[in-house]
Amino acid sequence: MAESVYKIIELVGSSPVSWEDAAKNAVNSAGLSLRDLRIAEVVTLDMKMEDNKPAIFRARVKLSFKLVSD
Amino acid sequence: MAESVYKIIELVGSSPVSWEDAAKNAVNSAGLSLRDLRIAEVVTLDMKMEDNKPAIFRARVKLSFKLVSD
Amino acid sequence: MAESVYKIIELVGSSPVSWEDAAKNAVNSAGLSLRDLRIAEVVTLDMKMEDNKPAIFRARVKLSFKLVSD
Amino acid sequence: MAESVYKIIELVGSSPVSWEDAAKNAVNSAGLSLRDLRIAEVVTLDMKMEDNKPAIFRARVKLSFKLVSD
Amino acid sequence: MAESVYKIIELVGSSPVSWEDAAKNAVNSAGLSLRDLRIAEVVTLDMKMEDNKPAIFRARVKLSFKLVSD
Amino acid sequence: MAESVYKIIELVGSSPVSWEDAAKNAVNSAGLSLRDLRIAEVVTLDMKMEDNKPAIFRARVKLSFKLVSD
Amino acid sequence: MAESVYKIIELVGSSPVSWEDAAKNAVNSAGLSLRDLRIAEVVTLDMKMEDNKPAIFRARVKLSFKLVSD
Amino acid sequence: MAESVYKIIELVGSSPVSWEDAAKNAVNSAGLSLRDLRIAEVVTLDMKMEDNKPAIFRARVKLSFKLVSD
Amino acid sequence: MAESVYKIIELVGSSPVSWEDAAKNAVNSAGLSLRDLRIAEVVTLDMKMEDNKPAIFRARVKLSFKLVSD
Amino acid sequence: MAESVYKIIELVGSSPVSWEDAAKNAVNSAGLSLRDLRIAEVVTLDMKMEDNKPAIFRARVKLSFKLVSD
Amino acid sequence: MAESVYKIIELVGSSPVSWEDAAKNAVNSAGLSLRDLRIAEVVTLDMKMEDNKPAIFRARVKLSFKLVSD
Amino acid sequence: MAESVYKIIELVGSSPVSWEDAAKNAVNSAGLSLRDLRIAEVVTLDMKMEDNKPAIFRARVKLSFKLVSD
Repeated sequence: MAESVYKIIELVGSSPVSWEDAAKNAVNSAGLSLRDLRIAEVVTLDMKMEDNKPAIFRARVKLSFKLVSD
Repeated sequence: MAESVYKIIELVGSSPVSWEDAAKNAVNSAGLSLRDLRIAEVVTLDMKMEDNKPAIFRARVKLSFKLVSD
Repeated sequence: MAESVYKIIELVGSSPVSWEDAAKNAVNSAGLSLRDLRIAEVVTLDMKMEDNKPAIFRARVKLSFKLVSD
Repeated sequence: MAESVYKIIELVGSSPVSWEDAAKNAVNSAGLSLRDLRIAEVVTLDMKMEDNKPAIFRARVKLSFKLVSD
Repeated sequence: MAESVYKIIELVGSSPVSWEDAAKNAVNSAGLSLRDLRIAEVVTLDMKMEDNKPAIFRARVKLSFKLVSD
Repeated sequence: MAESVYKIIELVGSSPVSWEDAAKNAVNSAGLSLRDLRIAEVVTLDMKMEDNKPAIFRARVKLSFKLVSD
Repeated sequence: MAESVYKIIELVGSSPVSWEDAAKNAVNSAGLSLRDLRIAEVVTLDMKMEDNKPAIFRARVKLSFKLVSD
Repeated sequence: MAESVYKIIELVGSSPVSWEDAAKNAVNSAGLSLRDLRIAEVVTLDMKMEDNKPAIFRARVKLSFKLVSD
Repeated sequence: MAESVYKIIELVGSSPVSWEDAAKNAVNSAGLSLRDLRIAEVVTLDMKMEDNKPAIFRARVKLSFKLVSD
Repeated sequence: MAESVYKIIELVGSSPVSWEDAAKNAVNSAGLSLRDLRIAEVVTLDMKMEDNKPAIFRARVKLSFKLVSD
Repeated sequence: MAESVYKIIELVGSSPVSWEDAAKNAVNSAGLSLRDLRIAEVVTLDMKMEDNKPAIFRARVKLSFKLVSD
Repeated sequence: MAESVYKIIELVGSSPVSWEDAAKNAVNSAGLSLRDLRIAEVVTLDMKMEDNKPAIFRARVKLSFKLVSD
């Protein structure tokens, strides 16, 4: 019986609303099946500011998903 | 005169809404008097994903509270 | 032609609402022109609790802004 | 419905055999129900040496267990 | 002459036996030719506990392999 | 024969005199038998300043003590 | 409107000349369009020495590139 | 009502006597009103040695003070 | 006799040539007298890439300079 | 009465069997009397892979030993 | 003209009095000429407790000294 | 058959030209045979400034070399 193996990828998502939204956007863009996703750990959070624009919240996350099931 | 001494405990709270909520849930479950609480420092934030469920936001916090008053 | 140089300052903002708000309050109080701001990186997040008061969310951020333009 | 809350405690276990054994010894001595345990994260590993004795492997772990169930 | 370039990917392997086994399982599941592999650095080790099951040892590793040969 | 197991707790002590004193105050307030104490590792040191008061030195320590003897 | 999402990959480049060159070699070997690249952050630098060969400078970088455009 | 905002500056103080003294010297030289000071966190401690001179203790501290009052 | 006190500021310099140049540019733009400067510690290095432009090397440095002389 | 002073040296040991073995090999090769050894702290663990060879487990340890006895 | 080269060694000193004393004891036991010493950076501080003995303060320091003069 | 064991020493080299040169100077001054050297990992980089002198680039490196061959 094969043991579970997970792969971890690093993504940066952004949102004008919140860091929670930014993290969700990152995960949704990864193009992975919901079935295989597990956890998105926050690596860093920041806020980008530009003239005449609302601040953009960004979340850098490490997303783990199943490579081999048990 | 005794000097203040604080104890620090580590908790993980969760919420389907936000990391702020997750941190509050952790603190509220600690069963400590509000009088003695001081600060909850965020150690890590993550987001747990499961099939057919909304993402759950989790906050790991270090909560300090008074052991001895000054 | 001079290359861009940025200065980085460290601020702690607070808000009874959210860490996003706390980060924005820190940046708004820095008294810098929006034109020159670039990024506010989160260093730490915490939550301060006091008797009979709502929890206060605090964000410590490193704010970078232009010292020399290119 | 209450969300899950976990508490995290830090333990150092030891074993003359292996770091895996040292980690298990730490967890077994915590006096917690197996039902509530979740994960023991390794913080540090070391090896203690004394004259005329086999080396002792030690594992410092952070053990998380349920405080509130969902 | 092109210089060597390596890519690094992050994997989590698991095993009921040992962390050495968990690390090997992670590498074997990566689907890469043995020829190109170089080093698997341990990032974190933990132990997962579930009711009525043996503890599972998990190793998070950064695996480097050749992208361009010299 | 049971192997030694230690538990580690985190405390903040304070003193108007020195960081050595602050660390000792933290340990003395933990209410543990001297027999079981082992080591208090310094995590962070700081100095709190208030108007019309002497500066207060504070030491955050991780205190380890025996849970199981060998 | 979709928000920008970036992916981050980790590469090790090498050069007999300099760490700047090593970082550029890593990026050039990633096989990504220049249009999508953003930033290569240095994670670690080292220098490999072998008998009768010039020292080789190596740079481990985290390279971010656009996954989704805004 | 404006929320409190703090600014954090980094200083290195020195003293032939102790690290406590070195930290106080750093704070006293910052030229800030005692009213506004809050906390000086120790970043690093070291000891400088020169021929025919007593060792000098140095403390690098991060000093936070009020920028906006609540 | 007053002891030396240093202040530390954080700057990001850039250069199309090298990280050494980027660090020097940061220091030269700080507008401080050469007499008072001491050390510029590298915090992070990165490389910014834009379409149709040479890569830009950036160095984030912590620059210490004398606030009070001995 | 002289206080104890320890020196700490850093070694990398290897073994085809386990990380425990790798750590022991590092310590045994240091050429120090067992009487003076104290603790070998694990700094990093990795696994080296080569074509047609078993994986080699490597442990980088910091070994402390007595320089002056009390 | 040769450039200065420094070597860095790691020592643990102890004292029943203070961490300043512990750091000095470590340096004095290194058996190096005062002429060549430069800086002892504190790596960690702790306090060892034993039954019926005063607490012992320990300082782990990295000591740098000249290998080659300029 | 003895497994390879490496020792790691920490050195600071300097150069008025570049950090690459500073790292090479550190290694060349260690007085070790080229045969036994393996890797010099950069720990920190800095730049020392003095009145009327060119800036000096310094590299602190961890140099590993063979203690026991396989």
